[in-house]
Amino acid sequence: MTFVPDRLLFGGDYNPDQWDAETVREDIELMRRAKVNTATVGVFSWSKMEPREGVYELDWLSEILDQLHAGGIGFFLATPTASPPPWFSLAHPDALPVRPDGVRLSHGSRDTYAISAPAYRAASRGIARALAERFGDHPGLRGWHIHNEYGTLDYGPHAERAFRAWLRAKYGTLDALNAAWWTAFWSQGYGAWEEILPPRDTQYLHNPAQSIDFRRFCSDEMLAAYGEQLAEIRATGSTAPATTNFMLPTWNHLEQWTWSDAQDVVSIDHYLDTRGPDGEAHVAYGGDLTRSWGGGPWLLMEQNATGISADGRWYTKSPDRTIRNSLGYVARGSQSSLFFQWRQSAGGSEQWHGGLVPHAGGSSRAFATIERLGGILESIREVVDPPADGRLSDAEVGILWHADGWWALETPQMPNDALSYSDEVRSTHRALWRSGIETDFVRPGAPITRYRVIVVPCLYPMSEETAAWLHDYAASGGTVVVSYLSGVSDENLRIVGGGFPGRLRDLLGASSEQIDVLGPGEVVDLGDGLAGTEWSELIHLRGAEALHVYRNGSIAGLPAITSNTVGAGRAIYVSTKLDQASRDRFFADIVAREGLSETAPGAVASGIEAVRRRGRSADYLFLLHYGDERVVVEGEGVDLVSGTDIASGLELGAGEVAVIRVDRGRTARIRGRRA
Amino acid sequence: MTFVPDRLLFGGDYNPDQWDAETVREDIELMRRAKVNTATVGVFSWSKMEPREGVYELDWLSEILDQLHAGGIGFFLATPTASPPPWFSLAHPDALPVRPDGVRLSHGSRDTYAISAPAYRAASRGIARALAERFGDHPGLRGWHIHNEYGTLDYGPHAERAFRAWLRAKYGTLDALNAAWWTAFWSQGYGAWEEILPPRDTQYLHNPAQSIDFRRFCSDEMLAAYGEQLAEIRATGSTAPATTNFMLPTWNHLEQWTWSDAQDVVSIDHYLDTRGPDGEAHVAYGGDLTRSWGGGPWLLMEQNATGISADGRWYTKSPDRTIRNSLGYVARGSQSSLFFQWRQSAGGSEQWHGGLVPHAGGSSRAFATIERLGGILESIREVVDPPADGRLSDAEVGILWHADGWWALETPQMPNDALSYSDEVRSTHRALWRSGIETDFVRPGAPITRYRVIVVPCLYPMSEETAAWLHDYAASGGTVVVSYLSGVSDENLRIVGGGFPGRLRDLLGASSEQIDVLGPGEVVDLGDGLAGTEWSELIHLRGAEALHVYRNGSIAGLPAITSNTVGAGRAIYVSTKLDQASRDRFFADIVAREGLSETAPGAVASGIEAVRRRGRSADYLFLLHYGDERVVVEGEGVDLVSGTDIASGLELGAGEVAVIRVDRGRTARIRGRRA
Amino acid sequence: MTFVPDRLLFGGDYNPDQWDAETVREDIELMRRAKVNTATVGVFSWSKMEPREGVYELDWLSEILDQLHAGGIGFFLATPTASPPPWFSLAHPDALPVRPDGVRLSHGSRDTYAISAPAYRAASRGIARALAERFGDHPGLRGWHIHNEYGTLDYGPHAERAFRAWLRAKYGTLDALNAAWWTAFWSQGYGAWEEILPPRDTQYLHNPAQSIDFRRFCSDEMLAAYGEQLAEIRATGSTAPATTNFMLPTWNHLEQWTWSDAQDVVSIDHYLDTRGPDGEAHVAYGGDLTRSWGGGPWLLMEQNATGISADGRWYTKSPDRTIRNSLGYVARGSQSSLFFQWRQSAGGSEQWHGGLVPHAGGSSRAFATIERLGGILESIREVVDPPADGRLSDAEVGILWHADGWWALETPQMPNDALSYSDEVRSTHRALWRSGIETDFVRPGAPITRYRVIVVPCLYPMSEETAAWLHDYAASGGTVVVSYLSGVSDENLRIVGGGFPGRLRDLLGASSEQIDVLGPGEVVDLGDGLAGTEWSELIHLRGAEALHVYRNGSIAGLPAITSNTVGAGRAIYVSTKLDQASRDRFFADIVAREGLSETAPGAVASGIEAVRRRGRSADYLFLLHYGDERVVVEGEGVDLVSGTDIASGLELGAGEVAVIRVDRGRTARIRGRRA
Repeated sequence: MTFVPDRLLFGGDYNPDQWDAETVREDIELMRRAKVNTATVGVFSWSKMEPREGVYELDWLSEILDQLHAGGIGFFLATPTASPPPWFSLAHPDALPVRPDGVRLSHGSRDTYAISAPAYRAASRGIARALAERFGDHPGLRGWHIHNEYGTLDYGPHAERAFRAWLRAKYGTLDALNAAWWTAFWSQGYGAWEEILPPRDTQYLHNPAQSIDFRRFCSDEMLAAYGEQLAEIRATGSTAPATTNFMLPTWNHLEQWTWSDAQDVVSIDHYLDTRGPDGEAHVAYGGDLTRSWGGGPWLLMEQNATGISADGRWYTKSPDRTIRNSLGYVARGSQSSLFFQWRQSAGGSEQWHGGLVPHAGGSSRAFATIERLGGILESIREVVDPPADGRLSDAEVGILWHADGWWALETPQMPNDALSYSDEVRSTHRALWRSGIETDFVRPGAPITRYRVIVVPCLYPMSEETAAWLHDYAASGGTVVVSYLSGVSDENLRIVGGGFPGRLRDLLGASSEQIDVLGPGEVVDLGDGLAGTEWSELIHLRGAEALHVYRNGSIAGLPAITSNTVGAGRAIYVSTKLDQASRDRFFADIVAREGLSETAPGAVASGIEAVRRRGRSADYLFLLHYGDERVVVEGEGVDLVSGTDIASGLELGAGEVAVIRVDRGRTARIRGRRA
Repeated sequence: MTFVPDRLLFGGDYNPDQWDAETVREDIELMRRAKVNTATVGVFSWSKMEPREGVYELDWLSEILDQLHAGGIGFFLATPTASPPPWFSLAHPDALPVRPDGVRLSHGSRDTYAISAPAYRAASRGIARALAERFGDHPGLRGWHIHNEYGTLDYGPHAERAFRAWLRAKYGTLDALNAAWWTAFWSQGYGAWEEILPPRDTQYLHNPAQSIDFRRFCSDEMLAAYGEQLAEIRATGSTAPATTNFMLPTWNHLEQWTWSDAQDVVSIDHYLDTRGPDGEAHVAYGGDLTRSWGGGPWLLMEQNATGISADGRWYTKSPDRTIRNSLGYVARGSQSSLFFQWRQSAGGSEQWHGGLVPHAGGSSRAFATIERLGGILESIREVVDPPADGRLSDAEVGILWHADGWWALETPQMPNDALSYSDEVRSTHRALWRSGIETDFVRPGAPITRYRVIVVPCLYPMSEETAAWLHDYAASGGTVVVSYLSGVSDENLRIVGGGFPGRLRDLLGASSEQIDVLGPGEVVDLGDGLAGTEWSELIHLRGAEALHVYRNGSIAGLPAITSNTVGAGRAIYVSTKLDQASRDRFFADIVAREGLSETAPGAVASGIEAVRRRGRSADYLFLLHYGDERVVVEGEGVDLVSGTDIASGLELGAGEVAVIRVDRGRTARIRGRRA
Repeated sequence: MTFVPDRLLFGGDYNPDQWDAETVREDIELMRRAKVNTATVGVFSWSKMEPREGVYELDWLSEILDQLHAGGIGFFLATPTASPPPWFSLAHPDALPVRPDGVRLSHGSRDTYAISAPAYRAASRGIARALAERFGDHPGLRGWHIHNEYGTLDYGPHAERAFRAWLRAKYGTLDALNAAWWTAFWSQGYGAWEEILPPRDTQYLHNPAQSIDFRRFCSDEMLAAYGEQLAEIRATGSTAPATTNFMLPTWNHLEQWTWSDAQDVVSIDHYLDTRGPDGEAHVAYGGDLTRSWGGGPWLLMEQNATGISADGRWYTKSPDRTIRNSLGYVARGSQSSLFFQWRQSAGGSEQWHGGLVPHAGGSSRAFATIERLGGILESIREVVDPPADGRLSDAEVGILWHADGWWALETPQMPNDALSYSDEVRSTHRALWRSGIETDFVRPGAPITRYRVIVVPCLYPMSEETAAWLHDYAASGGTVVVSYLSGVSDENLRIVGGGFPGRLRDLLGASSEQIDVLGPGEVVDLGDGLAGTEWSELIHLRGAEALHVYRNGSIAGLPAITSNTVGAGRAIYVSTKLDQASRDRFFADIVAREGLSETAPGAVASGIEAVRRRGRSADYLFLLHYGDERVVVEGEGVDLVSGTDIASGLELGAGEVAVIRVDRGRTARIRGRRA
């Protein structure tokens, strides 16, 4: 299902059970003033919805929903299962999560559930059913928001039982499991399923295959819980689209491709993790990832209107950034600009997490920003309609993404424990973003012939099928760029022998016999201003040519970056971790060689982020000005934000935004004002 | 009761059960040599006093006490309840403390008690009663030292039960508790008292109101345990004054005002936490706080004669500092110079904690220092007699202190987790100390009209009553100086909406709509050489004027420090965390504008700390020389230390001290020797 | 028993249960190619040897062992008790180790055993017996490898019981224990043995005497477990020599002197902990220690062929270093060059730990290095035969070593917690190594008259007997060099009063009354370019003279390094921690004054490590070139590596090695090539 609302959804989480009736009335008035049209209700209301086991009290909620609807405000209705109420823990202590050290956590925060506990699953189904029966056909219902940010890992007895069942289904026999997990080492051979445990605290290193399988199990187990709630909802006849909000990973507990299949529309919560300029690239990264996971329009379910959490501090997000970042998500396919939360809490654990209505109230710079954003979103509402083919992006570069890469690099005692999947993927995406190039993320095995370049960052475990799929792509004319630490092992983290990377050495026409890890801060020179860090390899060419060689270190003179002709295409291997500046330059070269061009020529040089969103009958060129100078936009089209035709040139000041309706395939040019 | 011994008490903890009879004899001889007149006995002797449950063996103690008394040495008798013996843990495992993660601690150290465990409370009452029955009328008894450094927090089942009872008494109804704790957020609504827990390990952030209430409960619970022991002692008819030794907070588990009410005399243990020059200001801080808590003369129950613990090291305290610091406490109202411990242990966990008699024995530089100190204390013994009005200090500046501020800033995810109450209060006190100005600490609601200035550092939670009390003070002519993070929330950490700081914006004539936290190391310029760190605010003037504006950053040009006229007085708001140099300058300005003057003119410039202690018929001017040069003291009076009249000028070398008896209201002047 | 194999043992751990039959065939072929003659089999094969409790399946092992034997490859047969199989944990959960916080660890790694659990001990005896019965007279059996790297500490109920029994045997009465542990402090007096616990998590500092006794108990308990396995083996009549592989301490859980007594030959696993040049000195340290523990030839049971683990990374070891370091161990008495492991694992927790056959396979630089090493070892095989007197080293300097020093410095709240025994011992050994001087380690009480110098680094606890032994040594003409923190306490960490160091002040003719710890980075100048860190003392000379005085700090002008004439010898006291450069210079002075000379004159200056190994009828001069330049070796003898007579000068390039057979007492000279 493609999710196409009648306008961009604007608003956020609304927790009215925190407030008295008068405040709720003021809330709805302020919502209308800011053109808010959507509230997400019920996320943390379980203890009010079901104050005693099996006793559902929903009249208060009905009243709120009716008030919202009467005010012209639609809603997502959340199942509140991310935060079981205190009575639930007391009645079902076995349903509390257990840490790897065996400590059973207590309620008193949120997310205190053991996902595999039958009592928890039953209670979750119950409340979902009750909500759907009561509100499943409410005219204000925009969709179902199931649970919130799935992500509590449990290592307790219920997880143990469910993990075994999952393994049994996956492997069939213990022999298969023992082989996959390489249990002959360290005398871990399992003689009975009952002997298998989650990776609890132990004396020394965990088995890496067990560790990654446990992460996969956790994702699947949470997905099963999601599916159960959805089934209850559908059983009542409610047909509203369903989603659950991913937490865009700084940690990562879900395999997003499979999860996306199970949702009617994909949604994420996205919080900046730096107050610096890289926040802009982070928005792009979040947007591109989610559009790719969803395969079309998606929902930004949460962002923070005023705050950025970093360094143990809540930094203030500037008004310009709030608007610019909001449009950044829309540019990448979001059908919404939703926030956590509408009104900042006066008490509770997140009282300092920003809201649309700050503590100071509606007469504030922060709320004025929200009103301004509401106006902009309304003026660009036509962007919500996707083209007939459903494709929102023209990206010609795809980055291979899979949670396996993340989880694999988190297993202990890798060759270099300082490396992280997230860092590698984000650095790669950032380099492309800095070239003004749009990027998709792709799923292993997906159709990719449309792309000119596929990048494979640090996908350590890889199946034979994925390797073959990459080979086919290259053979048919594509360019594959593979980083170090990709394709080194099979799906069970067993190293493919005979030369690294075992899965890809044929594709690359090169293999290495040895990894030479660099120390903290150590740099290896690759010439042409490129510098590698953290990793290097002793490579033998087997058909490939060397694009760059190591200039210093123990393997000076040997290939560092290689290129192999594969049928009509080629495969490039980058055997070191390029620092960000080198990576920027390296990908700029790739872009140039492939003849890719900036979304809007001149944009990057002017401090403008340009993003094209394909629409029903035209394209929309989003111009987000994060630079310092006034610039001029030239071309043909109309800026929906200001309502002006740009034919005679549109001036954009620092921090300003434009959304230009252009004919399909046309663009605009940016130049400095003084030019 | 005002505690007025017949001389300054000199000595320290004495643990004779560690030593053989010969050593005890040598101890008493050395005590006499050093003019020691007081020993604190029994602090850690429970396993010897009660070797089996209910079997009290006190003859050995009686013998020691008699020996001391015969040697002219009085004693504080401690109840040994801070360190239950091993047999107690075995008999009552439920009385061991439980950590937030559920781990029940083992004996083998000290302080291993669950304060709410009935068995522990009963055993504590029992040993207190037994000691009082046997020794309650001993002629050598100077007072009761109940427990030692109350401070073990327990999160186990007994704490759970007692916490609920405390909450029930405080809130009456669950509705009131749910409202106060803002439990609507995150589905924490409590439907039964049994659902409420201590803040044990949970999945994510704790509820801040629950957290601070738990801290309050712990303080009250320990106070109840103290009260029970005292009741047992009084029931035997013993009338000796009772105290318990506060641990001057680097951590803080007690609400000291309430605790002080319950004691006959307040006492503290004070350990320097830096070996640098700030140790001098730390002594002043400890002394001023304790004099203020006690409302009169008090007892320094412990300090370290030779060591300073910092950086995982025991640094050596110089002889000069040992003497100077000892007098620093007396200058601020201490009736004692007591130490932990008399003879440094040969074994056990604190064998490297300094003693009056070091490992090297009585023939050592360290012990010679103690003998010298003994002589000085005897020569100034007249200072113990307070004036008729009981007031020991002439301080004109008061700093508002309450443990709530400390505990509030320790709740998670505040706007800036780098901020600490202790740091803010100490920095403020240090700035005043560096101006040569004496300072009291004041209790919310106390009579304060006597003061010219009241400073309010980071008292985040504040009641309406406290806000009104501050307003009345200003209206009647006082000057209030309020720091950022004061009066932001109500007593339950619910933010008072409509502009920060909600409780005080009327008083301040200013309010802020937004907090702009600064990053680590970031500085904002306020002009006139003042620099702010960590915090800034977007302030609107509502009657106040701006004394300083922010010169850079996102809110450049807006007010940073404001002043509001309130009736006959004024209220100043400092909306950022001044660095120490700026704070010194800022308070020097306040001092100048208010016409306050140095305790002894010229002292600060000469590296002299001057403190006035009011006495029965004269005042005593303590001059503590921490600078490098010889100086001359001029004025009228007699130096009790050297016994010389200062009329013709008294020279003080680096590190030396003087205690000058001056007529009430008179002072002395200090000038450099070459002048 | 002196362990003299017929050649140097070459090979390593072999875990064939990881591999299929074809790989095993290739393995044996590769072993033969590299001249490998020894495999260590069975270390981690328990779950395959005993797949169900009491069911031993050893046919597969028999087949492997026969294949090896048929291929000319001998084997050490390991008892697999370091890694109990999963079924064992399930059947005997009480036999899993418990942490100090009470968490019982789970299987899923290795080393998950509670050493004191009866079930574990019985199962260990059982598998040892079964292996010995089946293979005890196998013609390929070189020796028994009992367990692997003993070292799991358990704090659970079985440890509690066994600890008490150990204490009862040691102290006899509770009075003796209470006195030794100084339990009068903090009310720790024990009234019943049942009250005594391992040092589990508690509220504050542990009792230091309890802590060190627990470490001693753990060592003894593991030794008892070793002894039980050995007894089972001997009961079958198997006479092959037995060993267990020490893990050369970066941590230290064993008292090695006692353990060495219990083995037929001492063996160690040695892993570099730095990739830098200090790795060379680390090899020397490991070799000297183990030769000293064993009192003769010993076995290097494990090293890493290609990797160095540091900074969370696996660094690559260069081929030169692999060969040079391997010979470094042989030079110091190793009869072997064994590695962990033969073939690098494809899966499991240590898949990135290097092997002789790397992931890339036998056609690799890494394997070529192994083949080269195999050739060298064969060419120098004659070195395995020791001289008739069994003494392998001519070292004239001995360093006093005892695990008590290590454990004592790990107790909490020492005067300076930054100090470590390992660091002090290694720094001292490194200084001597840099002077080109060979070093033994000596056991307290051992015959030492042969040595010219005995160094005592940081042996904090010391018995009266050890002190007397050192005194006798000095009196008879030896030179004793004592560092700070030596002899300060008795065996139970009770400080010996009256002046530091209490046990040694008579020997030193000096004592200090006070320790002045230095801060992080703080330096005290001792003149002549010597600098002290971390520690200083206020020393009184009592017969000694000052060699160096403190030039700055609180004790400027007082003695820092003293020398005392004791009979025919002298005792030097170094009262501060010399930094490495100062220590190098200080020991170079000692070397010069004592007239000690380099093993091979000119070696150090040329970047050559020279080590003499005494042989049956000649000596062997190992020359290991870690410098950068070509050098010339001059003298009389034959280089076994190149097979050339050195009479006309032997050139050695950077990274090269030579092993020169020289007449007893003769040496060679090294000079730079250009000279």
